[in-house]
Amino acid sequence: MIDFLCGEIIKFFSVKMRIGRFSKEGREFVGIIKGEEVFDLSNFFYLERKIQIKDINSLFENGLFSPEVFKKSLIDGEKYRELWYPLEKLNFSILYRPSKIICIGANYIEHAKESNIIIPEEPIFFEKATSAIIPNNGEIIYPEGLGRIDPEVELAVVIGKKAKGVEKEKADEFIAGYTILNDVTARDIEMKDMEKKLPWYRSKSIDTFCPFGPWIVTSDEINPEEDLKIELRVNGKIRQKSSTGKMLFKIPFLISFISKFITLYPGDIISTGTPEGISPIFPGDIVECEIEKIGILRNPVKKSINLSQK
Amino acid sequence: MIDFLCGEIIKFFSVKMRIGRFSKEGREFVGIIKGEEVFDLSNFFYLERKIQIKDINSLFENGLFSPEVFKKSLIDGEKYRELWYPLEKLNFSILYRPSKIICIGANYIEHAKESNIIIPEEPIFFEKATSAIIPNNGEIIYPEGLGRIDPEVELAVVIGKKAKGVEKEKADEFIAGYTILNDVTARDIEMKDMEKKLPWYRSKSIDTFCPFGPWIVTSDEINPEEDLKIELRVNGKIRQKSSTGKMLFKIPFLISFISKFITLYPGDIISTGTPEGISPIFPGDIVECEIEKIGILRNPVKKSINLSQK
Repeated sequence: MIDFLCGEIIKFFSVKMRIGRFSKEGREFVGIIKGEEVFDLSNFFYLERKIQIKDINSLFENGLFSPEVFKKSLIDGEKYRELWYPLEKLNFSILYRPSKIICIGANYIEHAKESNIIIPEEPIFFEKATSAIIPNNGEIIYPEGLGRIDPEVELAVVIGKKAKGVEKEKADEFIAGYTILNDVTARDIEMKDMEKKLPWYRSKSIDTFCPFGPWIVTSDEINPEEDLKIELRVNGKIRQKSSTGKMLFKIPFLISFISKFITLYPGDIISTGTPEGISPIFPGDIVECEIEKIGILRNPVKKSINLSQK
Repeated sequence: MIDFLCGEIIKFFSVKMRIGRFSKEGREFVGIIKGEEVFDLSNFFYLERKIQIKDINSLFENGLFSPEVFKKSLIDGEKYRELWYPLEKLNFSILYRPSKIICIGANYIEHAKESNIIIPEEPIFFEKATSAIIPNNGEIIYPEGLGRIDPEVELAVVIGKKAKGVEKEKADEFIAGYTILNDVTARDIEMKDMEKKLPWYRSKSIDTFCPFGPWIVTSDEINPEEDLKIELRVNGKIRQKSSTGKMLFKIPFLISFISKFITLYPGDIISTGTPEGISPIFPGDIVECEIEKIGILRNPVKKSINLSQK
């Protein structure tokens, strides 16, 4: 019996912890992905503890975002066979809307060069509106008349604890997990605004310009300075290909630098910049952002309806 | 009896509706300010309807932010004398953290001139981190080594309904109310970043750089194109003095322009820009932002502790 339990625990501990949000018959829920199945964490927490888990934010609010909690839930959840669904039968939903998304600009030297930005001496950062978030498989709506639109694959860090004045050496304690963010950019508007010394915000914050997911991999699976392959493909063709080890400013330094002046809250996102290889997308394209150890964030591009006819 | 009731209703309908958030003996609650008293709306909704109203966001989430609801609550609340507190005995709390704060740049011509920004042909906008919000009477922490810090008085519009592709003519239906936002800015950093064509975000988003309040005045009290006196005083001396009628882009146009591409959610803030007269503040100063029909947002300036010693 002890052998059996230990075997079970070891089996569960070796599971890669991926936390997603899905919809099934109109209901949205948070789930743990295990192989080809998803365990319904929202229903589980409601049945066991009467806690409502609406989205990933609810996990943070209830102090439930931790690999230990997820692993224990999987073990306890074995008895609820009705809470396990085949992944292929589910739709992906927006993970959550964080209180802020801070994006790092020009954090890969080759990308800074292709963008005509001077190699920064300290991190450049800007905010992207959380209203722009779409889930895995969600459509990037290509607005007419805005000119060139580019996708940008980025490794996104999910903050797990309130962080203010964090030392670089302790920054990893403040990371809950990692995911992928596609920092879609209205390039012509960005260039025009930049030329006039205007804010970067609007070209980055258009609705649907923030594909985010497909799930969060918990922080125990990835080292914050790890060298992960990062790639963007359009219709299967590689456009961006690099590794996260080439970041100019590494994740612990970014958390330390930003939190010196700006408090980071649980669920806040630091998106760590994109490598070289930016190029436009068009309606009908399929964009895939892939990062090693995380997965693939896939989004089709669709033409917008004409707003003036609304 | 009917006469009495009508009299009561008329009396209540003539009350200026101001919704704030306060703390009392460690508990934070949302309240309606009536004269020198505050009616505890959080406790009232809990007693009457078992609804938890944590902050202004909770009112939006529960569909309870409306002058009609507030007026009816005041009438029904007359029977709970224990839920009325003297305003002077309460501390102001953060109203809420909206999902985004969009600030308009260079929206008063004289201010654009003094800032060496070309008079914009269309609205310039940027985001300010919601983590920077402090309440009325909260301390603006002056960080050492950042150079010049300026306050900027602005009329802030509170969005009441999800807004996407809103026509200018219908924009007023999407406004829940108005308040004051002090867009505190690290001016030297802003100028340096602007010169390098970098984002405006960081100089605007430092912790405590967003005094916000003191309360929200409901939209039925103010016309979105109304000409309101707007003034900023430091230690009682006038620094900025103008009227909101001088805005280059008026509120209905701003809502229409932004919502064409960026969805606005209930509680989101559009801060409509600052008039001319920017100048620095220093530790020990008292900043007062006043807007006609709203009130005074008052904040002392305090020296920061040295972060490196933390």
